[in-house]
Amino acid sequence: MADSERVMVDFRTEPSRYRHWKLGFDGRVATLAMDVREDGGLRPGYELKLNSYDLGVDIELYDAVQRLRFEHPEVGAVVLTSAKERVFCAGANIRMLSQSSHGWKVNFCKFTNETRNGIEEATAESRQAYLCAVNGPCAGGGYELALATDHIIMADDGATTVALPELPLLAVLPGTGGLTRLVDKRRVRRDRADVFCTLEEGIKGRRAVEWGLVDEVVPRSKLDEVIKRRAAEVAALTDRPAGARGIVLAPLARSIEGDRIDYSHVTCAIDRKRGVAEITVRAPGSPPPADASGVHALGAAFWPLGLARELDDLILHLRTNEEEIGVWVIRAAGSPETVEAFDRVLLDHAADWLVREVRLYLKRVFKRLDVSSRSVFALIEPGSCFTGTLLELALAADRSYMLDGAREGDTRAPATVRLTGMNFGAYPMVNGLTRLESRFLGEPGRVDDLKGRIGQDMEAAAAEGAGLVTFTPDDIDWDDEVRMAIEERVAFSPDALTGMEASLRFGGPETLESKIFARLSAWQNWIFQRPNAVGPKGALRVYGTGERGEFDRRRV
Amino acid sequence: MADSERVMVDFRTEPSRYRHWKLGFDGRVATLAMDVREDGGLRPGYELKLNSYDLGVDIELYDAVQRLRFEHPEVGAVVLTSAKERVFCAGANIRMLSQSSHGWKVNFCKFTNETRNGIEEATAESRQAYLCAVNGPCAGGGYELALATDHIIMADDGATTVALPELPLLAVLPGTGGLTRLVDKRRVRRDRADVFCTLEEGIKGRRAVEWGLVDEVVPRSKLDEVIKRRAAEVAALTDRPAGARGIVLAPLARSIEGDRIDYSHVTCAIDRKRGVAEITVRAPGSPPPADASGVHALGAAFWPLGLARELDDLILHLRTNEEEIGVWVIRAAGSPETVEAFDRVLLDHAADWLVREVRLYLKRVFKRLDVSSRSVFALIEPGSCFTGTLLELALAADRSYMLDGAREGDTRAPATVRLTGMNFGAYPMVNGLTRLESRFLGEPGRVDDLKGRIGQDMEAAAAEGAGLVTFTPDDIDWDDEVRMAIEERVAFSPDALTGMEASLRFGGPETLESKIFARLSAWQNWIFQRPNAVGPKGALRVYGTGERGEFDRRRV
Repeated sequence: MADSERVMVDFRTEPSRYRHWKLGFDGRVATLAMDVREDGGLRPGYELKLNSYDLGVDIELYDAVQRLRFEHPEVGAVVLTSAKERVFCAGANIRMLSQSSHGWKVNFCKFTNETRNGIEEATAESRQAYLCAVNGPCAGGGYELALATDHIIMADDGATTVALPELPLLAVLPGTGGLTRLVDKRRVRRDRADVFCTLEEGIKGRRAVEWGLVDEVVPRSKLDEVIKRRAAEVAALTDRPAGARGIVLAPLARSIEGDRIDYSHVTCAIDRKRGVAEITVRAPGSPPPADASGVHALGAAFWPLGLARELDDLILHLRTNEEEIGVWVIRAAGSPETVEAFDRVLLDHAADWLVREVRLYLKRVFKRLDVSSRSVFALIEPGSCFTGTLLELALAADRSYMLDGAREGDTRAPATVRLTGMNFGAYPMVNGLTRLESRFLGEPGRVDDLKGRIGQDMEAAAAEGAGLVTFTPDDIDWDDEVRMAIEERVAFSPDALTGMEASLRFGGPETLESKIFARLSAWQNWIFQRPNAVGPKGALRVYGTGERGEFDRRRV
Repeated sequence: MADSERVMVDFRTEPSRYRHWKLGFDGRVATLAMDVREDGGLRPGYELKLNSYDLGVDIELYDAVQRLRFEHPEVGAVVLTSAKERVFCAGANIRMLSQSSHGWKVNFCKFTNETRNGIEEATAESRQAYLCAVNGPCAGGGYELALATDHIIMADDGATTVALPELPLLAVLPGTGGLTRLVDKRRVRRDRADVFCTLEEGIKGRRAVEWGLVDEVVPRSKLDEVIKRRAAEVAALTDRPAGARGIVLAPLARSIEGDRIDYSHVTCAIDRKRGVAEITVRAPGSPPPADASGVHALGAAFWPLGLARELDDLILHLRTNEEEIGVWVIRAAGSPETVEAFDRVLLDHAADWLVREVRLYLKRVFKRLDVSSRSVFALIEPGSCFTGTLLELALAADRSYMLDGAREGDTRAPATVRLTGMNFGAYPMVNGLTRLESRFLGEPGRVDDLKGRIGQDMEAAAAEGAGLVTFTPDDIDWDDEVRMAIEERVAFSPDALTGMEASLRFGGPETLESKIFARLSAWQNWIFQRPNAVGPKGALRVYGTGERGEFDRRRV
């Protein structure tokens, strides 16, 4: 298994290569039907029966959700359903889970959570609303997928149920937001949620509606008709342009040679000995298009979109395929003026559907960075370009180092950072605040003050005074200070760093999303370590062998 | 070690028995000075050097905080400090931690968290404000204790620092609220918090003030004078009555015989075979005093206070000494009228300092129940008394079962529940909401409707209709349904139940406290399982041996 896990996971796919999902279109409504190939597992050793899923299935789902947003501006509603006759979805594949390392399980849950959060964001902010037609038994991750939609219709046919059987069956939690969405999104009464989550067989029919687990139950024979009607009603409310043409998300160009990963605007050099990934993000070489139609004409070649796609892919690649690289060092290179000009396009045409999608995608990518279990340092040096959208990377970092003044012999101007309007609301974190607001929880007035400094170049002293960077060593100290900070970071316990970073990055308010990543995921991670689940006699381990799990009865 | 853990822990103590703390009084200001006896550990195998602490030290702290509230109405400010010459507090004893089982560590952190939350509640709601005089190195749990106070003054003497060295030193997190209080209470900038939490040696002097880690630094020679002045200023703001006499918290009478634990108003029968604790809470036999002076005259004999003390002790006892008893079944017996009359006293004299303390204590006890890692079921039967304050126990339960109608041959009236004004704000949970508000997150109007039904006896159908109980089996079904529900509960994985309950009990908003119990504790629990901390080469395990921890470098 350890070997099979070393299979490199590629997150890039496209509809023509889907093995597990069917995408259909009917005017304003799209249908995304799950049809998992039993023999289509990402790794060997398990069969994806009963529409159960693994990371490979979810990678396709993620791709489909992305493409629906960019390639189908006309779609206002998406119906999630199953293409199988007798089952909706049995959830994450149990054999896959029981074979997987702790790290794989945790990473898998994080990605599936992000995809479901993205479905909710598409509904709320892209105005491409997801509905779910539960046309067969719907258990575990299957029901959690349904919970990510805003309207769940279930067939009332005696066989169709919704269930979260993880606890009674496997001694783990529903790990993809289920518990949180029950009480915080659907606001199911906590005692009923308690009953539901311990009922292996789930709940069907009227009680499921009464308890708020689904929105409607309809006779099986009427399911298609009703979901079609509801989807049309929802689609009619969208502000997405019926007549617009989508853009094509052309295959993402990436080359991996040795320890170097190259995209168009992003490069990553992995230093395995030091345990560090050196990531450089480059500003565009030419100015932005003059207007929204220019953005549409560029499509996937529009720099902010290219940047989002590349960073997204890189983060996922590093998370999944480079577990031992614990520190990500981020640099930004290029012209601040150009980035500022691109930011102006994003701001001036914010209402355009495509520009909105680009911003939302960047937002999701930065959020993915925030919840990555890697230490992130930003290095701000002469020639760097932490401006506006790119400054978010430094604000997302656990620390930033900015060189004060020039390097000996370097004739370039000292490093600067520059705020744009995009730093003040375009990219909220999972806690609902901007990175500046999260940074200045104790001094909210600072955020207002900084608004007055949009467009100014701030050198190290100014940036430090404004609270935007952590340390500003000069040329004499820079090399040693930065090197030692990174060496020290790499030497700490990776687990303790993960827990610390998860605690310090998200001050302030909590949201459904932040609760999922914090409370729920942390508990799930804990349980994924417990002998009662994963020990030799643990329930997850013995599932399917005919044996029952044996439990240490001590409550912790 | 396993054996030494089986030493029964008794949470009852009193100042004359303190071994680790010195309590002093000077008018409106009290001083609580830590002076840990090295050889005074609760269990064998470690020495409490440098004012490091174990559960025994914290039990005394908890007792002192309680007594200051009840026995010293005149005290408006409490100065926390060290009685040692050269150290404030080195935090939780590391050898104790490294010897302890996972369950012990988690339980220890939960209790210490509750005590620190109680210090903050005393400051905010009892108007007995805590200040901290850091008069020597203050690390880990020592600094977390300081963080629980509202004003931290540190000596500027070259040796005194504040530090959270857990991560660099032990590969664990500061587990007693430190990370959360840094960013959410003191609102330290997240990148500075990141730096601080990785600095083994901590931070001293002006930088500690600049970063918001402490409120003031003063020369060592001035420390006493300044803290005295600050304490006097704070004490002058209290609404606590300078001339009032405190009550005496007389020793709590408890008898443990075999598997039966008896207090005056609370009884617990442990059924080890079934893994169940059957807890019965009894309403008082006689009516309440007519006014506040009657409450004062009764003192600790005032039923609500007695109830709070007994339930508090029982919860702590069961948590610590009865780990394998996973289900707590709660019944309430007695006269609803009497409980309602007591609740009226609590409401009518809410502003009286002692009545306020009694309510706050009950609030804390119910909160302790909420965060206990045990399944809680309430059984509501004829003769029961889930009224007002006691109804909170049913609302805190994961589920409640209420018998519909009478039992065959039982001539008593059917079971009822009754709301009082105390259910509508007196006892908020850690999320800041009442249990009714938490229950009806999706239908907040219900809470208002229920206000109109205060004082009404609701039989099973009415209670179910009002959403106050989970199930209402009749006499025919009751025995089987309740028995099976309990048997099923006991059979589930204790860990998965803990994670599920922690997720379902606290819907809605988050607070500093809920973030500590949810996010921070869950991460800490996870880390407390990880080989990087507790494996044979884990940092916590090898601490003090001269070896360094060896880490699996994979990020999870």
